Amino acid sequence: MHFRRGFPFLEKWLLQEIFKAIGPAPLRFSFKEGQSMTPPGVIPVATIVIRDLRTMIGMMFDPEVYFGEAFADGRIEVQGDLVRALQAVYESWPSGRAGKSAYQKFTSRWADWQQKNSLRGSRANIHRHYDLGNDFYKLWLDSQMVYTCAYFPSPSATLEEAQEAKLDYICRKLNLQPGERVVEAGCGWGALALHMARNYGVYVKAFNISHEQILHARRRAAEEGLSDRVEFVEDDCRNISGRFDVFVSVGMLEHVGIANYASLGEVMHRCIGDSGRGLLHFIGRSHKGVFSRWIRKRIFPGAYAPTLAEAMDVLQPYRYAVLDVENLRPHYAKTLEHWLERFDRSTEQISSMYDPWFPRAWRLYLAGSMAAFRTGTLQLFQISFAGPRSTSIPWTRARLYTDANAITERREDASWMHATS
Amino acid sequence: MHFRRGFPFLEKWLLQEIFKAIGPAPLRFSFKEGQSMTPPGVIPVATIVIRDLRTMIGMMFDPEVYFGEAFADGRIEVQGDLVRALQAVYESWPSGRAGKSAYQKFTSRWADWQQKNSLRGSRANIHRHYDLGNDFYKLWLDSQMVYTCAYFPSPSATLEEAQEAKLDYICRKLNLQPGERVVEAGCGWGALALHMARNYGVYVKAFNISHEQILHARRRAAEEGLSDRVEFVEDDCRNISGRFDVFVSVGMLEHVGIANYASLGEVMHRCIGDSGRGLLHFIGRSHKGVFSRWIRKRIFPGAYAPTLAEAMDVLQPYRYAVLDVENLRPHYAKTLEHWLERFDRSTEQISSMYDPWFPRAWRLYLAGSMAAFRTGTLQLFQISFAGPRSTSIPWTRARLYTDANAITERREDASWMHATS
Repeated sequence: MHFRRGFPFLEKWLLQEIFKAIGPAPLRFSFKEGQSMTPPGVIPVATIVIRDLRTMIGMMFDPEVYFGEAFADGRIEVQGDLVRALQAVYESWPSGRAGKSAYQKFTSRWADWQQKNSLRGSRANIHRHYDLGNDFYKLWLDSQMVYTCAYFPSPSATLEEAQEAKLDYICRKLNLQPGERVVEAGCGWGALALHMARNYGVYVKAFNISHEQILHARRRAAEEGLSDRVEFVEDDCRNISGRFDVFVSVGMLEHVGIANYASLGEVMHRCIGDSGRGLLHFIGRSHKGVFSRWIRKRIFPGAYAPTLAEAMDVLQPYRYAVLDVENLRPHYAKTLEHWLERFDRSTEQISSMYDPWFPRAWRLYLAGSMAAFRTGTLQLFQISFAGPRSTSIPWTRARLYTDANAITERREDASWMHATS
Repeated sequence: MHFRRGFPFLEKWLLQEIFKAIGPAPLRFSFKEGQSMTPPGVIPVATIVIRDLRTMIGMMFDPEVYFGEAFADGRIEVQGDLVRALQAVYESWPSGRAGKSAYQKFTSRWADWQQKNSLRGSRANIHRHYDLGNDFYKLWLDSQMVYTCAYFPSPSATLEEAQEAKLDYICRKLNLQPGERVVEAGCGWGALALHMARNYGVYVKAFNISHEQILHARRRAAEEGLSDRVEFVEDDCRNISGRFDVFVSVGMLEHVGIANYASLGEVMHRCIGDSGRGLLHFIGRSHKGVFSRWIRKRIFPGAYAPTLAEAMDVLQPYRYAVLDVENLRPHYAKTLEHWLERFDRSTEQISSMYDPWFPRAWRLYLAGSMAAFRTGTLQLFQISFAGPRSTSIPWTRARLYTDANAITERREDASWMHATS
């Protein structure tokens, strides 16, 4: 480690311990202003300024949670590019480090228990994040209010174009046919359900336990004259009844919790049986791990990003066959880039709406997510699947990419095979 | 059950027991000629004629193995469409039925042990199937001798076109760049290795433990003047050394056995490290299960088709991220249709080369595989993956489908992102 200026023993030792905890990231850690430390032989991408001794000690014991807490409080300041700084940490983070100490293990288990996704627990968890007020989300989401990974046909597409492209991409992956019945589990502000009904002539029953989102979605359906084709239900998707052709869920599996995958599979099977098909879109991982404990504490209580193998626990018990998995990780990094840019442009308004820690915490969450998708700490999986008796298996995927916007032509596409012809 | 003509008690009981064992398939079982049985209310798709009492008893105890043995011996004859008859059985087969009795469990474990894929065991298992003689495989494979699932851009493509399309599809999925080094584990008669070197300017080291296949592959490389760019090594891929950019394996995972997935992952990591990428193409399942015990006994010793979740045991330990999974099940059914047709056209020649049971056993194996892919008993997965430090993550999959044959244009395609830009 390189030191500059006079440096008291305790502070030097604490900075060394912080680097031990987070790994040799190319960062400059600085106590108050003057004194600083950088691992040898690296050019720091940013400077982390720690404002007090208490924060130094917290960072040493539990950097994952304490960095978030102190950043939100203003006791830590990042000088330079926040996203690049977080990428540097993700890349140097010792593998298997998270939750290693007894204290960290205990707080992680405690959070698991406190935030468990029972019918009641889910309602509390979802309420805390999604009922922050539609006005808040309107400030930095796209005009349709889609709060999941977009699909950018090219990196230069606008966020509005990319969210519209994502909605349509999902419909094409599902090969929706006019008159079919679709159930959506976790429908956000209703954009996908409305897109499916409007452009594909299907009937949609869409579930969500966020009160504010359901009200907004119903209003939009009424405005568009789609209320007879889209029903928005304020209920847990575990209570779904009725028979459907298609099951779709975008950005919900993260909130289900791995303990409930078997019962989600059961719900799906009750809805679409052996002959239905569906799509799951969710944040995943290439190796087992829990979300940052700070994210779970402040942003997403009860969230868990599964590996592909873990996600199979939803599909395998009922012999649903995976037809297609696509990793859209680069698209989530790009989506977050747009969100963070809009968020930063609305700082003043957001600051006037909430306590001072709130915009800082959310900025860290958005920047940290962007860093996680850029470094591959998180992945975004879209899984298309079909039941063992489904007769709607696509012959190739070419139809997804040829003339992507020709919705009317697509319906006449006959290049689907009957599996047991 | 409906009976016709006079029917002795024992034979009637045996036929009932056979239907209990295989499920109420829409088949007519007939003992010798005259006497027969069909489940009520179904129209039989074919008639299974059993020629002697011994076969009746065997079918009752262990229809999975005994049907194959008796069919190959000529003690069972199928009148009507063999593939449709086998589809009917797959569709009615009671789930979890295979290997349920103590006897069946014992024979299955015994086979596991006898056929285990140690370095020596693999050599014996592979020798038995792939060293049957190149002249035999030439009779019914395509001109390039590709013995894995083809890719039919449209269902009416020829087998030759579809195998060529498959080879190129894999190269495009891998985004091969001139000068890169590729390792292929299990290279068959060398078609993919030669295609990659010829059309993509890469260097290939290809492994195979089948002696006859390696000799053929080396001859082809010499004929094409590619010997300086493709090295065919007669060795187990577990002994690979050297550093590569890309790892590819087509139709080998089935022969590795689930107990060896961790060591295959280790081999991959030794070859391509954290920054490489690769593709696995293999026969899989949507639920856990073993290959037909008859197939393992007579055709593919040591074979196992994993679920997607099981296959992740190869990739997860080294944090390889799944980029893309495609299920090509309908394409394997179509490939097998072509193979069986060519096989049937060569019956006379094949009969002159082997014992009488051999062509019947192989006919059953090809027809049974076709039925398994048609009914979804088996799946065909192509998994593209990249290491945690790979900088070659495709932006979208569109480039796979636009102007698919323009190899030169493809190299100039710049729509690949650097994951950590």
